[in-house]
Amino acid sequence: MDLKERRNKHLGNAEKFFYEEPLHIVKGEDVWLQSSNGKRYLDVYNNVAHIGHSNPIVVEAIASQAATLNTNTRYIHENIIELAEEITATFNNELEICYFCCSGSEANDLALQIARAHTGQNGCLVTENAYHGNTTAVFQMSPEDCPTEKKEEWIGLVGGPAKYLNDKEKHISESLKTAEKLKNNGSAPAAFIADNIFSSEGIFTIPKGYLKNMYNLIRSFNGLAIADEVQSGFGRTGKYMWGFQHDKVVPDIVTLGKPMGNGHPIAAVVTTREIAKSFNSSHGYFNTFGGNPVSAAAGLAVIRFVNNNKLIEHAENVGKHFKKGLSSVARKLRVIQEVRGSGLFIGVELESKSITSQAIEGLLSEGILVGQTGPQNNVIKLRPPMTFKNEHADQVIKAIEKVLS
Amino acid sequence: MDLKERRNKHLGNAEKFFYEEPLHIVKGEDVWLQSSNGKRYLDVYNNVAHIGHSNPIVVEAIASQAATLNTNTRYIHENIIELAEEITATFNNELEICYFCCSGSEANDLALQIARAHTGQNGCLVTENAYHGNTTAVFQMSPEDCPTEKKEEWIGLVGGPAKYLNDKEKHISESLKTAEKLKNNGSAPAAFIADNIFSSEGIFTIPKGYLKNMYNLIRSFNGLAIADEVQSGFGRTGKYMWGFQHDKVVPDIVTLGKPMGNGHPIAAVVTTREIAKSFNSSHGYFNTFGGNPVSAAAGLAVIRFVNNNKLIEHAENVGKHFKKGLSSVARKLRVIQEVRGSGLFIGVELESKSITSQAIEGLLSEGILVGQTGPQNNVIKLRPPMTFKNEHADQVIKAIEKVLS
Repeated sequence: MDLKERRNKHLGNAEKFFYEEPLHIVKGEDVWLQSSNGKRYLDVYNNVAHIGHSNPIVVEAIASQAATLNTNTRYIHENIIELAEEITATFNNELEICYFCCSGSEANDLALQIARAHTGQNGCLVTENAYHGNTTAVFQMSPEDCPTEKKEEWIGLVGGPAKYLNDKEKHISESLKTAEKLKNNGSAPAAFIADNIFSSEGIFTIPKGYLKNMYNLIRSFNGLAIADEVQSGFGRTGKYMWGFQHDKVVPDIVTLGKPMGNGHPIAAVVTTREIAKSFNSSHGYFNTFGGNPVSAAAGLAVIRFVNNNKLIEHAENVGKHFKKGLSSVARKLRVIQEVRGSGLFIGVELESKSITSQAIEGLLSEGILVGQTGPQNNVIKLRPPMTFKNEHADQVIKAIEKVLS
Repeated sequence: MDLKERRNKHLGNAEKFFYEEPLHIVKGEDVWLQSSNGKRYLDVYNNVAHIGHSNPIVVEAIASQAATLNTNTRYIHENIIELAEEITATFNNELEICYFCCSGSEANDLALQIARAHTGQNGCLVTENAYHGNTTAVFQMSPEDCPTEKKEEWIGLVGGPAKYLNDKEKHISESLKTAEKLKNNGSAPAAFIADNIFSSEGIFTIPKGYLKNMYNLIRSFNGLAIADEVQSGFGRTGKYMWGFQHDKVVPDIVTLGKPMGNGHPIAAVVTTREIAKSFNSSHGYFNTFGGNPVSAAAGLAVIRFVNNNKLIEHAENVGKHFKKGLSSVARKLRVIQEVRGSGLFIGVELESKSITSQAIEGLLSEGILVGQTGPQNNVIKLRPPMTFKNEHADQVIKAIEKVLS
């Protein structure tokens, strides 16, 4: 039996691949992945390997801590304390309490529980094509995946950036109606949550005032503002450590995940002391693996690498160069509708889903891995490791022009 | 600031410790933990370090895979396939499909989603003091943590082993009433779930026929039987790889967690192809970290170590020796009500919660780490790494006799 057959025999999600002919990747190094047939691919997709595939600093941190001790947060250990200090410092200590868990899904699920405990309310406002994860509750908060007929009555859908950019006043009045409807149905919104690069909405830099308006709205209902920084965090969008900072707001709860351990399963929820107190009074939350010394070592290695190597500034600069090159291709090729995004999270909207799928397979032949997203699945998702350089961007720009011509 | 103050400043669950004076553990090796002041403790509590603290085989597996590649299940990789093969082989391929995730909570949450998707039903039967995890949904399935006033109407509570042992017929008729009530209220049970060593129920070997009866009951409502093997799995209870095997049943869904990666965050849901098909038709489940090559390497190292070192047989033998010694102490000391459990998961029920708390602090002074559990918190929980030997058991037996005398 070949690997594909063996996989189909025992894996639940066996047929989920990125490409028609699935890749068998055997090695990763910085921005490069290598397949079993020896072909090298430039990775412009995998944000999880935030500071580069197989980054030796993370490997060493994990290996050496795992060889020494791995326990849980019910014992005192330096690593988790140091990590909590490093993380909260990036929020100017306005948000000063961290809960550690293992995945973005767990983080968003916990954020919902915290918001409900603090507000005594039940509902949640999410953007129309959001993806926040896959637990029972978070699946509801992920209309990208959750079919309309399964949607429960505590979920209210609000427009994403596209609708806001189209008609701001209408966006605000419709969002208000949705929140009121929830409240009238006995599910007043405990929270509004948004992914601050709006990945599954088609990738958008936060339109000026979008978060500000939505945060004002949710707070007028005594709900909390949750910033899902699982994708936009750790400098990904350039200029700032966190995506929400682009709109000059301060959320009540922030969730972290994917890039946090460079692939090691670690995630977190950050909030204020007051909100944490409400939650702790009704929930004795404990997460067996969350914040264990090895996971915390991975987290420390990543955040320190980002800071020491000025990767936020780097993402901003390379991102600008990347966008500029893509925009110049867009002016030549009608098939490109728009180039969007910030830092090293860029979306290239094309005319249709089928063209996008073709482009992605075409880029694969050119040795370049990219993703596909958006409500119409017509956006090329460019989201490489943060160590991605101008020369890599140039290679992608050239290949996109070739493939789309 | 000392570590405790720094921890209080930034950790959400900062005050959750095992002991009045929290332990600062700096090193782990096999069944030993060492604190910052150089004191060595015999670890009779931490089941997560299943094959011994800092087991070099797991450390090497993680380190070498992390240095080579860490991606996700949307690429083909040998590790996850091999792990799925090793796991499903232990179920005689009656359950042949694995979904990988990061924690026992994620696994139990996913199991609920799968059961709901397959049955089209919503409710869940759980034992009265069960603990299954901490997501929004699984918190409901964890009456040990979820206060009665927060219990939602889709949860039905059934008696645990204590009630069953007390009056079998009554247990069956009351469970039936509970299931019927759920059904009549529009939440017909999609599943019955039980932790098969009944840890938070006070630690019980499955009473003969308990699972058989409950599985018959849930199936008569077209619901599924879920075996939560997060604590009882991987040979922990001796004789068998999985706890449910002690009652000669085959569940529809099994969840795995804690010991699976010896501390590395990995968990899984195992089910039949037919049930997986129902779930896949409505859920495009994907877990970013679940089953990544590094986590799978950790999982492979653990299950192979268990098999190669015959740890299941070992747990049975040492467990028998341990129970025998404890029972002989129990005959001498009235304060011990009962010694229960299987393999290396043993409960010693004492007269009261306060005596149990004192005993645990007393054992700490003797250099022995144990836990406390049960609906009345009057059970000493003994659950060491699986490499625990007779000589270690003897040390604990002696210390328990001393502390309780």
